Amino acid sequence: MKRMEAEKLFADLVEGTRQQTPVPFIERDAERVLAAIQTAAVFWEVVRLSNVPMRFLCDFCNQLINGDLVVASDGKLSLTDKGKELVEALEIAPVQEGICNACEGRGIDISKFYGSLIEKYSEICKDRPEAIQDYDQGYVTEATSLASVSYAWQRGDLENKEIIILGDDDLKSIAAALTGAPKRVLALDIDTRLIEFINKVAEREGLKNLKAVWHDLREPLREEWLKSFDTFMCDPPESIVGLKAFVERGIMCLKGRGCAGYFGLTHVEASLSKWAKVQKFLLEKGAVITDLREDFSSYVNWDYIKEMRSWSWLPTKALPEHLWYCSAFHRIELLKDVEVENPRLGENIFDDEEVATN
Amino acid sequence: MKRMEAEKLFADLVEGTRQQTPVPFIERDAERVLAAIQTAAVFWEVVRLSNVPMRFLCDFCNQLINGDLVVASDGKLSLTDKGKELVEALEIAPVQEGICNACEGRGIDISKFYGSLIEKYSEICKDRPEAIQDYDQGYVTEATSLASVSYAWQRGDLENKEIIILGDDDLKSIAAALTGAPKRVLALDIDTRLIEFINKVAEREGLKNLKAVWHDLREPLREEWLKSFDTFMCDPPESIVGLKAFVERGIMCLKGRGCAGYFGLTHVEASLSKWAKVQKFLLEKGAVITDLREDFSSYVNWDYIKEMRSWSWLPTKALPEHLWYCSAFHRIELLKDVEVENPRLGENIFDDEEVATN
Repeated sequence: MKRMEAEKLFADLVEGTRQQTPVPFIERDAERVLAAIQTAAVFWEVVRLSNVPMRFLCDFCNQLINGDLVVASDGKLSLTDKGKELVEALEIAPVQEGICNACEGRGIDISKFYGSLIEKYSEICKDRPEAIQDYDQGYVTEATSLASVSYAWQRGDLENKEIIILGDDDLKSIAAALTGAPKRVLALDIDTRLIEFINKVAEREGLKNLKAVWHDLREPLREEWLKSFDTFMCDPPESIVGLKAFVERGIMCLKGRGCAGYFGLTHVEASLSKWAKVQKFLLEKGAVITDLREDFSSYVNWDYIKEMRSWSWLPTKALPEHLWYCSAFHRIELLKDVEVENPRLGENIFDDEEVATN
Repeated sequence: MKRMEAEKLFADLVEGTRQQTPVPFIERDAERVLAAIQTAAVFWEVVRLSNVPMRFLCDFCNQLINGDLVVASDGKLSLTDKGKELVEALEIAPVQEGICNACEGRGIDISKFYGSLIEKYSEICKDRPEAIQDYDQGYVTEATSLASVSYAWQRGDLENKEIIILGDDDLKSIAAALTGAPKRVLALDIDTRLIEFINKVAEREGLKNLKAVWHDLREPLREEWLKSFDTFMCDPPESIVGLKAFVERGIMCLKGRGCAGYFGLTHVEASLSKWAKVQKFLLEKGAVITDLREDFSSYVNWDYIKEMRSWSWLPTKALPEHLWYCSAFHRIELLKDVEVENPRLGENIFDDEEVATN
């Protein structure tokens, strides 16, 4: 295939996808997908490696399949001869992955913080409640939770600090309290199973500073939680409304400037345009981003995967066998004091065009 | 010491520093310094661990010394009994560091990208020109340069791409070209020693796609460089003017949306207020931050350390024996096309109140 012919074909594919997909889609996104397909066959691995929203990834894959550039079956994608000619003519290189095996790319050594408590935490998690779709759940691996808390410790946001966790299906409250370092850990969640589990663990293990309280984060926060913590952690819904709402609630819980917050954000359900909106929002709220670590958090596959909305989009359907859903770990720090607005939010803060997993 | 007494003393120390220092300084910054002094004795290690600007770190240390909370001698700081009582009463914990030894906290395994070329690069660097103060130089470790390029490769910003490096005392152009992956690597620098060195290496090693060209980045870029590259890398001066100027020049070199840029930013010479200004500037330019990895880049100690402006600020003077000057690695990606403004800049773009090393 000649370069000009390939460029024309590529432009048509991008334009075709753009007309179909409700999410901002650019040439570089198409390139990322074609780079990932060269490296991995399994669809879920392509999702992970391409770092683009599922919404247009699926739309673009369907364009590729319709154009005889890719064949899809049994959960796998592969380039046809014509597809190979295309990527060669466009000089799109395969994804090269080279993360550090020792720390799974996180850069932090959890054993330096936890030692033998790693096993303890693992034992505790054995009986944990499974993720359910009702509350948009999906929890991270144990290593992720331990690394998140270790990271906060390293940054001075854990020891002798008061920490609030807004939504805790990741059981980070237990991971934090287990270190013995925080002054106080409060977990809020809408799922009574989690509240009971965390409080039972706190009692059994003698974690006096750990407490879980039922709360629906769409409702205003209790007065006693406002401006009362040094650090917040949350894993917000990925809709822009939900994201802002959760992070804003987190910020409202902070005592003031110099306090820190942690949250995750994916590419699977958030375009870079959405990322930019989040960054603008953070700055407006008087927060600065101090850390943003891609693929820090890996999520354990959940049971309701066939019921999530994106299942119907998939170009080839098979259950994932490995971790594929990752998020980027954000740390923010407040530069100014907190203005509290504490509204009641609408029923559905979980949806926008990019959301894929509920 | 009673809590209330400690709080009063702490508030006075912070206020005293605030009156002395020209850089925004908050309670959390004071806390970071006291946390670092508990972990490390050597002054340069306190700088590294506290993650605050040298400017007010030194001012605050002098307050601590005058208040008999810290003693300083032979390049070391230590808390007095009164100082220990203060941090205990305020419950300020020591810094806990637990980075992954295997990857020095970077999360990337350079051997997966470079293999035996690591040694080759090291050999090449043996004859490199030393850093000089005239051009605000100070270069990163070899591992840092290799990891930066590996990171860009992993993100799809290296292979078959055209790369421009604006200021290359880090010799990243050589690290990039050595992989054989990029289509073209162009290094610009004001230092003729570096231009000659890079071009000589390119010739000797047969790196056909590598070229270095003399350029003073205060001058407008040549027409042929504008909107012509997929990726830029730079290590800007830390003054807000210099920072914006260098990053803006980098953005001007990019072909358009979807292209990426890399740069470093420290805490040593940039307060979080300055970080927030940079982030706002990036968003205004249509760029989104996709990665921000703290302490990714470590700088080799330079020869002119006694001549830098901050030497006179030091509470105790001794040359550093270990790496201490680090920067956070930023990756940005363009969401919109580039508007070129290509002005000539003033003579001195290297200064502001926070700058410490020139």
